Amino acid sequence: MADKQRVCIIGSGNWGSAIAKIVGANAAKLNNFEDRVTMYVYEETINGKKLTEIINETHENVKYLPGHKLPPNVIAVPDVVKAAEDADILIFVIPHQFINKICSTLLGKIKPTAVGLSLVKGFDKKEGGGIELISHIITKQLHIPVSVLMGANLASEVAEEMFCETTIGCKDKNMASILRDIIQTPYFRVVVVEDVDSVECCGALKNIVACAAGFVDGLGLGDNTKAAVIRLGLMEMIKFVDVFFPGGKLSTFFESCGVADLITTCYGGRNRKVSEAFVKTGKTIEELEKEMLNGQKLQGPFTAEEVNYMLKAKDMERRFPLFTAVHRICTGEIKPAELIEYIRYHPEHM
Amino acid sequence: MADKQRVCIIGSGNWGSAIAKIVGANAAKLNNFEDRVTMYVYEETINGKKLTEIINETHENVKYLPGHKLPPNVIAVPDVVKAAEDADILIFVIPHQFINKICSTLLGKIKPTAVGLSLVKGFDKKEGGGIELISHIITKQLHIPVSVLMGANLASEVAEEMFCETTIGCKDKNMASILRDIIQTPYFRVVVVEDVDSVECCGALKNIVACAAGFVDGLGLGDNTKAAVIRLGLMEMIKFVDVFFPGGKLSTFFESCGVADLITTCYGGRNRKVSEAFVKTGKTIEELEKEMLNGQKLQGPFTAEEVNYMLKAKDMERRFPLFTAVHRICTGEIKPAELIEYIRYHPEHM
Repeated sequence: MADKQRVCIIGSGNWGSAIAKIVGANAAKLNNFEDRVTMYVYEETINGKKLTEIINETHENVKYLPGHKLPPNVIAVPDVVKAAEDADILIFVIPHQFINKICSTLLGKIKPTAVGLSLVKGFDKKEGGGIELISHIITKQLHIPVSVLMGANLASEVAEEMFCETTIGCKDKNMASILRDIIQTPYFRVVVVEDVDSVECCGALKNIVACAAGFVDGLGLGDNTKAAVIRLGLMEMIKFVDVFFPGGKLSTFFESCGVADLITTCYGGRNRKVSEAFVKTGKTIEELEKEMLNGQKLQGPFTAEEVNYMLKAKDMERRFPLFTAVHRICTGEIKPAELIEYIRYHPEHM
Repeated sequence: MADKQRVCIIGSGNWGSAIAKIVGANAAKLNNFEDRVTMYVYEETINGKKLTEIINETHENVKYLPGHKLPPNVIAVPDVVKAAEDADILIFVIPHQFINKICSTLLGKIKPTAVGLSLVKGFDKKEGGGIELISHIITKQLHIPVSVLMGANLASEVAEEMFCETTIGCKDKNMASILRDIIQTPYFRVVVVEDVDSVECCGALKNIVACAAGFVDGLGLGDNTKAAVIRLGLMEMIKFVDVFFPGGKLSTFFESCGVADLITTCYGGRNRKVSEAFVKTGKTIEELEKEMLNGQKLQGPFTAEEVNYMLKAKDMERRFPLFTAVHRICTGEIKPAELIEYIRYHPEHM
C-alpha cells in the first residue's frame, strides 16, 4: 500500500481541470495510484460561495471548465502546501508567471522524492534577458526531476473526450511508464520521448511561428506562402533547440508537441488571430491584447522578444530570419510585409 | 557554346505552364542554358485556332494558365519528339496516366545523355497491383536518370509569383546544381536533397492523409483530432517509405515536399474537400468525382487502394491503420466514423 503513488495537480484553470478529469479517472482505476487526487485551486468566490467548495460538492469547476464533471476523487484544496505535501507526483498547470511564487511556497514542504510534470506553456524570462525553461525553474527551486507534457491539446476538446495525442518528455524510463499510466486514456494518447527540453521548447517557440502565419493571413499571401512560413518556422525551432538546448533528437519534432501542435496553432489559435488583426487593423500588439484578449499578454511576441535577446547575444539573428522578423514586426521596427524579404534567402535555401 | 543546356518541358497544363514561366525566364538569363525552351503542348483547337499557335503568338496559355505571360523564348511544339529530341533536360509535367505512352513515343528519339526531372504527382499502378514511381517508369523506359520536384506549390500561386518553396530530389551533385539554377527564382525557393524516392512518395502518399483529414472535417471532430490524424498520417508516410523504398532520410520529410505540402493538402485541396463531402452527403467517391471533379479521378482513394495492395501482400495492414482505414472507408467497407477506432491504438502509441 505504501508504494501507491499520490498525485497532486497544481492549477485548476481550463487545462488543469481537463487534465484533472483524466488523472482522477485513471487514479481511481489503477492499483498503483492512490484514489485521492488533490487539486490546488486558487480560491475565488462565485456567487457568494467558495470555488473549492463548489468543486468538492458538485464536482464541476463551474468557472474554468463548466459543463464537465470531475471524478469525485479529485479534491479541490485552496492551500497549495496542503495539496502538495504528500504527493509523489506534482502536475504543474498554472500560468508561467506564477511558477516562481508557487515553487518558493512549496520549497521544503514537499516530499524529497517527489517528481514533477510540467504542463506549463511558454518560457519564463531570465533575469537580465533571455529565456528559462519552466521545468528547469521547478528543478532548480524544488530540487526534483521534472518531466513535461505538450501537444496539440485544446483543453475544451480534451474535456469533450475527443481523440487526440500528446507528448511526454521524460528522461527516466520507470517514471515515464508511471506518467504514461496516469495520463493515457483511450482518447488521450501518449507518446513518451526522452528529449525533455525539445518538447518544452516546442510548446513556446510555436507561438512565434503562429505570429508569422497570422501575418501571412493578414497580408493575404496564399497557401503556398503560409506552408513555407510554417515550414521555415519549424526549421528555426529545430535549429534553436539545437543551439541552445543541444542533445535532442530530430524525431521529437514529428511528435504531437512538434508538428501537430504547430499546425493547430498556425491555423487556429490566438497568436495567429491577433497577428492577422495586427496586419489588417494597423493597431499595436498592446492595443489588440486589450481589445481581443481582455489585456492578457500574447505569448508569441513575448517569446519572440526573449528569443531575440538570446540570438542577438550570440550574433545569430541572420541564422534565424523568421524569428527575427516576427520580433521586429511585433515591436513595429519593420512592416509585416517585410516578413517575406527576411526569409526570401533563408539559410535553409543555401 | 556546345555545352549550353537545352531544356524541354513535356506538358503544358496549369502546373506545366507555371513552371515554363520560371524555366523560360531562367534560361534566358543564365549563360549555361540555351535561351530557347521547348514546351510540348497536346494540340487543341481554341475558337478555331491551334493552341500552340496561340501560345507562340500571344505567349499565353489561354486554356490552362490564362492571364499570365510566358517568356517569348518558350516555344510551344505540338510534336513531343520534335520538342524533346535536342534537349539535355526533360521536364515531365503531365498527368501520370500518360507517362507510359509519352515514354514509348520518345524511346530512341532523345539524346542518350539527357536527364529527366519529373513533376508528375501520384503513383502509377503496377501490372498486377501495387505502385510504381513515375521517376522509375521514366528511367526504365528511356534509360535516363530522373530527378523529381515536389512541394507545397499550387500552380496558380506560383504563376502569381507568390513566395514559396519546393524540393528537388536528385542523386547527382552536378546535376543538382544545374536543376536548381534552372528552377530557382527569388520567389520559388529550392532545397535539393539526395533522397529522390522519398520526395516522390510524399507527393502521392499525402493524398491518402488528406482523405483522412477530410473525413475528420466531415465528422466535425475538432482541431486536436485533425492534428493527430495528420501527424499519424505523416508517421505512416515515413514508415511506408522506409519499408518499400528504404535508404531515405528522416529530414526529407521536413522539406517542402513533406510536412509543408501535407499541411496545405490537408487544409485546402480537393482530396480533403471531396472526403468531407463523402461523409456529409453519404454519396460514393465515384458519384462525388462526377459531381465535384467533372469525372476526374481523385488521387487519394486510388493511391490508398494501391498502397493497400502492397500492405496486404506483406501482411502489414495493422502497422498502417490510417492508410488501411482510408482505403476501407473509400470503398464503403467501413464507415467514416470508424477511422478513429482504427488509429486509437496506433503502433506509434505503443
